[in-house]
Amino acid sequence: MTKHLYNIPGKSIDIGKQVSNYINSLTKPLGSLGRLEELAISLAEMKNESFPSVSPAGVLVFAADHGITDEGVSAYPKAVTEQMVLNFLNGGAAINVFSRQIGALLNIIDIGVASDLDHSDLINKKVRYGTGNFLREDAMSREEAEKAIEIGYEESIEIINKGAQCLILGEMGIGNTTASSAILALLSGKAIEALVGTGTGITEEGIQHKVSVIKQSLQNRNPDSSDPIDLIAKVGGLEIAGMTGAMLAAASMRVPILVDGFICTIAALLAKQLSPNASDYMIVTHQSVEPGHQIALSLLGKKPLLDLGLRLGEGTGAAVTYPIIQSATLMVKEMATFESAGVSQKN
Amino acid sequence: MTKHLYNIPGKSIDIGKQVSNYINSLTKPLGSLGRLEELAISLAEMKNESFPSVSPAGVLVFAADHGITDEGVSAYPKAVTEQMVLNFLNGGAAINVFSRQIGALLNIIDIGVASDLDHSDLINKKVRYGTGNFLREDAMSREEAEKAIEIGYEESIEIINKGAQCLILGEMGIGNTTASSAILALLSGKAIEALVGTGTGITEEGIQHKVSVIKQSLQNRNPDSSDPIDLIAKVGGLEIAGMTGAMLAAASMRVPILVDGFICTIAALLAKQLSPNASDYMIVTHQSVEPGHQIALSLLGKKPLLDLGLRLGEGTGAAVTYPIIQSATLMVKEMATFESAGVSQKN
Repeated sequence: MTKHLYNIPGKSIDIGKQVSNYINSLTKPLGSLGRLEELAISLAEMKNESFPSVSPAGVLVFAADHGITDEGVSAYPKAVTEQMVLNFLNGGAAINVFSRQIGALLNIIDIGVASDLDHSDLINKKVRYGTGNFLREDAMSREEAEKAIEIGYEESIEIINKGAQCLILGEMGIGNTTASSAILALLSGKAIEALVGTGTGITEEGIQHKVSVIKQSLQNRNPDSSDPIDLIAKVGGLEIAGMTGAMLAAASMRVPILVDGFICTIAALLAKQLSPNASDYMIVTHQSVEPGHQIALSLLGKKPLLDLGLRLGEGTGAAVTYPIIQSATLMVKEMATFESAGVSQKN
Repeated sequence: MTKHLYNIPGKSIDIGKQVSNYINSLTKPLGSLGRLEELAISLAEMKNESFPSVSPAGVLVFAADHGITDEGVSAYPKAVTEQMVLNFLNGGAAINVFSRQIGALLNIIDIGVASDLDHSDLINKKVRYGTGNFLREDAMSREEAEKAIEIGYEESIEIINKGAQCLILGEMGIGNTTASSAILALLSGKAIEALVGTGTGITEEGIQHKVSVIKQSLQNRNPDSSDPIDLIAKVGGLEIAGMTGAMLAAASMRVPILVDGFICTIAALLAKQLSPNASDYMIVTHQSVEPGHQIALSLLGKKPLLDLGLRLGEGTGAAVTYPIIQSATLMVKEMATFESAGVSQKN
């Protein structure tokens, strides 16, 4: 795989300091806009601009199937991946609603759905018809993993070139909390029991089954936790790889990444492992209900903005959080200073 | 005071149940949009509509001065109230920025600023030139307190009649965390030390002084904690009374109230005390840094949506949260159902 994908500049600490000082001159008590102020400083550091814009957002939803669903790890049938992709294309899913609300560009990418889909708005970049059942075989080859990362990279560059000022990554793939939990178990060294949740809504018994399938799969596949490509190839997912590549591209172009929930944070960890600077461009938007998310966030070293009990995926949590990030940019851009407004300073 | 101000209908539990069932038919795992789903149900109950809208929001900012500032309880000079009102009118304050972002109607009301202000956009409803210094005299008369509540009520009716579908209350008044802490001490029975914070940014020594001023004031004034009008008259503020009246009006018209931070929550407690049903129409938008806020919220019996370390007031936290509340309404209105989208249900 070409190393240029991992070439990411550091953030601009100097601009951050300038913006921090400027924020202290705005007509409000010092520090009184809390995390909005931190966000404004972070965004300036990412974009190397004092008055960065995040508008419009670009949303990329990567869809792919998972062979591991053959083991009965999910609450919904595998066919739902395909059905939901059509729902995205027809504008009826939650990510459509929230993308419209925030005026985002939205692209739906088939990076590995198990069936053929036909729709003029679908971006067809299928690497293969779903992953292999990783209890019994590798999810995909190393080459396929690299190809999926490259596709994500290219789609990200494309939407950024079309004007996206920040990037939201979404996914659809029945079975992908199983793949994500397997990857996280290796990255974190935590017991699988601590990571696995209800996904889209399995029972307590279902969770135990999911745990034992992941345990056996990790024994059978034995991925190298220090090699993200090996993790993706052996127990990962094509949509996870696509999101990883998309994040690397956004970071390389200094475009802020609005990290969504559990699956998205696993992709973020893989991107960070491939190129540590990538995490400088990530804003974690919310704390998901999925138990592995908190563990993944502590590995990423980021604190989520919101905690609204979400566990939908598709990029929905990031899209719902977007206006708050926009508020931070508008605060810096539009507020008057004590001097310009003729307001007295502290006693 | 005319009792009609306290006439507030109960919320519609039946519509809430219908909307809850409908949400379960939307194309997403059951319950996976967490607090957005709760919000959508609450809004339906408030508005007695299955598909309620909160757009546009109406923002009312009440401004007034506080005689207690003579005791040196605030980090900023009293003149800042007037200066900030002019900043609001010129569009340079944080609440202007966020109101523009969310497309809200915004009115600025002088309900008791200590000086004469002249601006074509200012709504002049001055009850008196600031409150009395309640260490030494009552903040205002009982009649003035009732008048301020009525003004808030009328301004709220007016912005609702102009189209506001939800109400955000903001305030400006140097010294108003002192008045609010005094009221909360009486309503909660908690020690004043547990309630008082830095306000706009006083020092540790300043906090101790503020505590002792409030203690002495409560001894001197001895308000009746069971009588909200007495609380306002003896240790309250004109802008706090205005917000209280505005909330009563919104609730009477089934218009959702987006409660902001500490001062606003004190007004919410007073509105609830005057008419218990009022709290059915309140959504607490965020947890402020001001220590009394958590105590006030537990009295109100509400859980905030966000925790972003804000402590600005002006209604800013509510305005920043508004898009999330809008997301909840759009989810119900625009998402496809499993049936309409042809998506399979759970196994």
